[in-house]
Amino acid sequence: MKLTFSPSSPFARKVRISAIELALIDRIELVPTTVAPTTPNEKYADHVNPLRKLPALILDNGQVLFDSTVIIEYLDDLAGGGKLFPAKGPERWQVKTENALIQGMLDAMLLARYEKGVRPEALRWPKWIDDQWDRAWHGLKYFEDRPEILSRPFDITQIGLACLLGYADLRFPDSQWREAYPKLNVFNEKMLQRESVKISVPK
Amino acid sequence: MKLTFSPSSPFARKVRISAIELALIDRIELVPTTVAPTTPNEKYADHVNPLRKLPALILDNGQVLFDSTVIIEYLDDLAGGGKLFPAKGPERWQVKTENALIQGMLDAMLLARYEKGVRPEALRWPKWIDDQWDRAWHGLKYFEDRPEILSRPFDITQIGLACLLGYADLRFPDSQWREAYPKLNVFNEKMLQRESVKISVPK
Repeated sequence: MKLTFSPSSPFARKVRISAIELALIDRIELVPTTVAPTTPNEKYADHVNPLRKLPALILDNGQVLFDSTVIIEYLDDLAGGGKLFPAKGPERWQVKTENALIQGMLDAMLLARYEKGVRPEALRWPKWIDDQWDRAWHGLKYFEDRPEILSRPFDITQIGLACLLGYADLRFPDSQWREAYPKLNVFNEKMLQRESVKISVPK
Repeated sequence: MKLTFSPSSPFARKVRISAIELALIDRIELVPTTVAPTTPNEKYADHVNPLRKLPALILDNGQVLFDSTVIIEYLDDLAGGGKLFPAKGPERWQVKTENALIQGMLDAMLLARYEKGVRPEALRWPKWIDDQWDRAWHGLKYFEDRPEILSRPFDITQIGLACLLGYADLRFPDSQWREAYPKLNVFNEKMLQRESVKISVPK
């Protein structure tokens, strides 16, 4: 299988960590890929993902899967099922909701970054950045207020949170999330001791 | 169960149509809810969804589920499973990828709309609108080029496409998608004969 990949994409990092944890990483070739808003990439749009987003998983029979959540659910199934997402019951819907929240927080952080770093300076709207950042910030509070999530056995929520906090450090080094959310800080330090998380920290 | 809802939200419409098709709509109270970018809504952020997005499903025990994909998967499971999403096999991952594509196309269309209708006029960036619209447009091509998707038994992809085309008509009435994608036009006309789709067309 091939995975379109960039080390700075938190979504691609989620898949990489998941594949390592599911012992499937040796079956996946990481294909370095560059995508960016307002930069055309017809080949990728026509043959991989019309949304021009990372990551996509290209199976050996040519089938293309995305987004990162679909890919990780597929890999979890390939590894026997119920490993990173609970297979059933109320826990399943809780974890899937947490995962959707983290995906939305990452989307919001990427929009804030595009506003600050891609859009021409004269066209930037501080209120938009504040609005997007506020969504991510409220999301961090959701997890800080639910420490039982942070101490569960390793799952997709914890992988997603590690990737999100790594992305915050990479792109918003002044956010001071550690001071505002001390339980997330302890959680993050614990995650960084895990090999899959440690080797994938974006630089 | 309660569903936070707005008739103009294509994501909320997806859930409503799914609930009708799964014969679960009588168990769901639609709660009219207004959210908008750059408009604070602390109560919704703190008690329903930190992302301040629609829809969210509030279960009778108080558990809150989102986003629309998670809610529809939950309802599908509640109705016995395998009805709107295939339960297993390559079809499952194909349909989940199509659903992720439609979600991303809707996100792109909403971003184009916020740029045109919410952001102060002096700060608008036409290249951003073009970029977002281009993602949705390539996504439409994906489905136009795969007519087997349009003629399958009713599923979540077809629900999503009907909602997306309805949203295009509502917010981008000059897009001329019908002329560019004639197979999607025939598909859309067929969908509009279905009661669940017909009664939920946004005005």
